[in-house]
Amino acid sequence: MATHRFDPNFTDNVVNAMGPKTNPRFRKLMTSLIRHVHDFARENEVTVDEWMAGVQLMNWAGQMSDDKRNEGQLVCDVIGLESLVDEITFKLAEEAEDAPTATAILGPFFRADTPYRKNGDNIVKGVPDGEMAFMHGRVIDFTTKKPLVGATVEVWQAATNGLYEQQDPNQEEFNLRGKFKTDEEGRYNFYCLRPTPYPVPDDGKLLKLMDRHPFRPAHIHIIVSLFCYSMLLLSSVRVKLICVQATHDGYKPLTTQIFDSKDQYLTNDSVFAVKDSLIVDFVPREGDPQAGLELNYDVKLVPAPSNSTNDV
Amino acid sequence: MATHRFDPNFTDNVVNAMGPKTNPRFRKLMTSLIRHVHDFARENEVTVDEWMAGVQLMNWAGQMSDDKRNEGQLVCDVIGLESLVDEITFKLAEEAEDAPTATAILGPFFRADTPYRKNGDNIVKGVPDGEMAFMHGRVIDFTTKKPLVGATVEVWQAATNGLYEQQDPNQEEFNLRGKFKTDEEGRYNFYCLRPTPYPVPDDGKLLKLMDRHPFRPAHIHIIVSLFCYSMLLLSSVRVKLICVQATHDGYKPLTTQIFDSKDQYLTNDSVFAVKDSLIVDFVPREGDPQAGLELNYDVKLVPAPSNSTNDV
Repeated sequence: MATHRFDPNFTDNVVNAMGPKTNPRFRKLMTSLIRHVHDFARENEVTVDEWMAGVQLMNWAGQMSDDKRNEGQLVCDVIGLESLVDEITFKLAEEAEDAPTATAILGPFFRADTPYRKNGDNIVKGVPDGEMAFMHGRVIDFTTKKPLVGATVEVWQAATNGLYEQQDPNQEEFNLRGKFKTDEEGRYNFYCLRPTPYPVPDDGKLLKLMDRHPFRPAHIHIIVSLFCYSMLLLSSVRVKLICVQATHDGYKPLTTQIFDSKDQYLTNDSVFAVKDSLIVDFVPREGDPQAGLELNYDVKLVPAPSNSTNDV
Repeated sequence: MATHRFDPNFTDNVVNAMGPKTNPRFRKLMTSLIRHVHDFARENEVTVDEWMAGVQLMNWAGQMSDDKRNEGQLVCDVIGLESLVDEITFKLAEEAEDAPTATAILGPFFRADTPYRKNGDNIVKGVPDGEMAFMHGRVIDFTTKKPLVGATVEVWQAATNGLYEQQDPNQEEFNLRGKFKTDEEGRYNFYCLRPTPYPVPDDGKLLKLMDRHPFRPAHIHIIVSLFCYSMLLLSSVRVKLICVQATHDGYKPLTTQIFDSKDQYLTNDSVFAVKDSLIVDFVPREGDPQAGLELNYDVKLVPAPSNSTNDV
């Protein structure tokens, strides 16, 4: 197999160092990762200095990360990895004829501790140059089309200055975020901003080095979930990687983003997350002093099998 | 090319997002890296949760890293990447018929600020259970075999408890480290420990997950350099990735490790750094109250071309 001029046994030696107690899935992943990383190094004859520059970038990303920012995730995002993994994970659902709502990446600005608000609330404070929109819709069962009562719709978006509240000392905590519960008819609604495009942070210079723009098309992040005993566990699944047991009444949680059809960056998102089915139209709204625009958006959830587990 | 069932254009889109001002070498590296990472994700159908677990590991590694510890480097080491990159970088020199001294990885415990000591000094303080050894030898020009005067020989080693001084609050700073200058005959010498095997840190659990032991065979780290104007620049090259202009009197700096021929881990080093030519014999030393063992070790340096630059 080896067509290069380096030690032909080296990679096998590293792979075969794994012991018999290695979890089979972990062994498969590490074997493949080691082979790809070694092939990358050999094919490009990567030097010690180039490799060390990569190590420094990854260490820096970790050092920038905390409970409000995930820079390692952002590095993956700009090379398309989160969007690809999202496509892979939810491929089966997408292959269904009448597909449930498509998924999109979580992104690095999710916060697990976002508070609940009441339907009809306004999540916008102190963004005078924003266009206000009334967003509303229903959460329904993908199969039966029945409305889902008590589902959680969690949303977050950036301000018009391009910053999420945790990046911006001038925004109050949890601004432009909220969790809403669907009512007896499966309905949710709230006031938000028409989203605006913004640049992802590029302190690490990776985008500059690739001569790429950092802009994301205007979007609103959404997570919709319905567990029978605890909404908060969803946050744990997504961020802290704790196992969650979904019950017989549960649905597969959905992480997605919706994109404004008028945005100039729809075709060249810096993190490659746009899907056609997630592009939405904001339309004029009449007679509402709180908002000149309106967005109707329904979400279809897929039932989770009884006792299914989200593996880590 | 695409034999998988995912978007066949996705990876090309990510690669082609790089703009025309991207440095050609950086474009080559990123193109290859993106293709390998995407292939890895598709071939294994990596899930969002698995990917996120990887992100958390990499962020954690960065957060553990500081000017005394490089955990990102250690992650690379346990999957063999630093040793492979070392092999690649120095392949040409190794292919020479009468090879200069072979190289080995820097490892995460190098310190740029190690002080100079005098030939004949003892670098060991407070390790009563260690076997003392007198290490001595010459630094010579690989081509002319002439002794090199004023070359710097920098060494570092772990104590018998398996810890380098920066890991161990009970060792004084710079214990078991030192820089020495070769004399008029190209000679260096000092007292050190016969090295002992030790486990690399596994706080990140990567080795446990792979069911692998963490032990490194007993070794002494060595960097040998001869620049005409500043020895300190070497540290900058290796750690801070600053460009260094080597002058007409310069030699290619050598980073290596030497391994005790009696060690039980020679064939299964946890970071895959052992090379046959780097295995050395400690022999009994007579009539020296300071040391019962002796090691004679000569180093052959390769001249650096005039005005050559160590690229970042």
